Amino acid sequence: MKKIVVVGGGTGNFAVLRGLKSYEVELSAIVSMADDGGSTGILRDELGVLPPGDVRQCLVALSDSSSMMRSLMNYRFENGGLEGHSFGNLLLSALEKVTGSFEKAVDEMGKILSIKGKVIPVTTHEVRLKMLLANRKVLEGEKAIYLSQEIDQGYKTIYLEPYASVNPRAIEELRNADLIVIGPGGLYTSLIPNFLVEGLADALVNSSAKKIFVINLMNRKGQTLGFKTSDYLREMVKFTGEDIFDYILVNNQKPPQELIEVYADEGDLVENDMKQERVIEAPFLGEIASPSKRDLMKRNLIRHDPKKLAQELMKIVNHL
Amino acid sequence: MKKIVVVGGGTGNFAVLRGLKSYEVELSAIVSMADDGGSTGILRDELGVLPPGDVRQCLVALSDSSSMMRSLMNYRFENGGLEGHSFGNLLLSALEKVTGSFEKAVDEMGKILSIKGKVIPVTTHEVRLKMLLANRKVLEGEKAIYLSQEIDQGYKTIYLEPYASVNPRAIEELRNADLIVIGPGGLYTSLIPNFLVEGLADALVNSSAKKIFVINLMNRKGQTLGFKTSDYLREMVKFTGEDIFDYILVNNQKPPQELIEVYADEGDLVENDMKQERVIEAPFLGEIASPSKRDLMKRNLIRHDPKKLAQELMKIVNHL
Repeated sequence: MKKIVVVGGGTGNFAVLRGLKSYEVELSAIVSMADDGGSTGILRDELGVLPPGDVRQCLVALSDSSSMMRSLMNYRFENGGLEGHSFGNLLLSALEKVTGSFEKAVDEMGKILSIKGKVIPVTTHEVRLKMLLANRKVLEGEKAIYLSQEIDQGYKTIYLEPYASVNPRAIEELRNADLIVIGPGGLYTSLIPNFLVEGLADALVNSSAKKIFVINLMNRKGQTLGFKTSDYLREMVKFTGEDIFDYILVNNQKPPQELIEVYADEGDLVENDMKQERVIEAPFLGEIASPSKRDLMKRNLIRHDPKKLAQELMKIVNHL
Repeated sequence: MKKIVVVGGGTGNFAVLRGLKSYEVELSAIVSMADDGGSTGILRDELGVLPPGDVRQCLVALSDSSSMMRSLMNYRFENGGLEGHSFGNLLLSALEKVTGSFEKAVDEMGKILSIKGKVIPVTTHEVRLKMLLANRKVLEGEKAIYLSQEIDQGYKTIYLEPYASVNPRAIEELRNADLIVIGPGGLYTSLIPNFLVEGLADALVNSSAKKIFVINLMNRKGQTLGFKTSDYLREMVKFTGEDIFDYILVNNQKPPQELIEVYADEGDLVENDMKQERVIEAPFLGEIASPSKRDLMKRNLIRHDPKKLAQELMKIVNHL
């Protein structure tokens, strides 16, 4: 059975893992630990736990349990002191308190959700993501970076504080992988933070696995607006150290014009400017959510379809 | 296999169920729905859910899962907006939201905890417990009654608002029971509220099961101070309608004097004043918690030992 390791965090990882879960492959997710927004940020601040949000999404993606259990994990309380917390985040945080270890908590939640595969935090150190902009302003935290509209005016560096060594289990996964998939996901907030952890980029470069970069569907205003495929690759290679990608997956399906307009405030569609053999263009768009839900989930309106993504990835796996 | 139905709520139910769980019997817990204090009260008020606390304790008592899972369910968050909430309460409330029904939530949590037996809310209507005192003051809510120091100066009536009909599943359990165990537990706050639900007392009286009343270890100051066995029986019979008890279990083990003194602010030891064949006296005291924990859990310092209680109950079962 081929071993596929997915590196990222959050919703992007979810699509890849959920899609691949239907196939006979061995799956592992290496997950960024930089998240500090929303429910996750509150839990970090108030309880001193490691960030549960991205790990929760990966666990749910790999879960073989009922759809009710998956809904439960993503359920967000709507009122009072619990408002905004997803239940799965509370489960992971309570497990961390009871077991005394975030990794044990992830493993226990994996059992509760009957997951197929492994979810591995890229580091088990408590870190904060920071970015020094060209104008010398420092963005403190993943949330601040996510919300910033100034990144496209230039940044000097992005880093984790304090120094964090990589989880040895993540290294082992990369070493034994047949295929490594990076992305899709927020470039500065979900993907790059993994490679800021000392040791991960080296392990990626040294792995004999085929490496795939899945390019995002949409650019983000103030951050990656106007980015083309080559811009994503250039930014990523800054942090992996070498252009090690055997395949680059790019969407070539255009969303309805009406939707692009709805999205105009947030960003534009990524265009492909790389005509190389390793660049695979395919239609990757997920179904469009019903209009009634649009306002609520604008962020996630245009997203990768897990099935389409997995089909294209499996073509590569089947040629290994 | 003999069928034992336990009626009550909270910590008292926990001891009986946890003790009986080791034996080859069929167990059901009928649980009061009047709790509105602490974490449960906040969840009722903020989320509009039914009270999870007593049900949670019964589910944990019947759980066959790991001690880690049981610790998780009783884990209380210590900081921030989550402070004071037990994780198991949050699980039940989130399940109620996701499934749309408190009973489905109880069943799902039973699966997650691999429970042996059934946990049945006495009613699925939202009710508040109220007490009209002799001085015409109305105590609104279980918490207010629990905290009151005036009940021993006389009360006129205790009632649920609004009118609540009994859960038909509770009736069925009583009908099919071989043994029904009432208590131990807070007389006005955990035991009597069950019999205020229209239909439960009739079902109890009409059941052909043997009925056992387990008398509390300690009286509660301002409520039952100075109560003897006959006082508990008299109060209970007011609400069951008839003295239907085949057996009355009373503790005859004295706690260390030092502990009685620690407890003096809260209440005194229950003495047995009934010398009847149906009254079974035995040593029921649980092990004393280590002194370091005493301040934290004064309320629960003197409590029933699940094993001793179950041994005595099983003697009765084995004679059926």
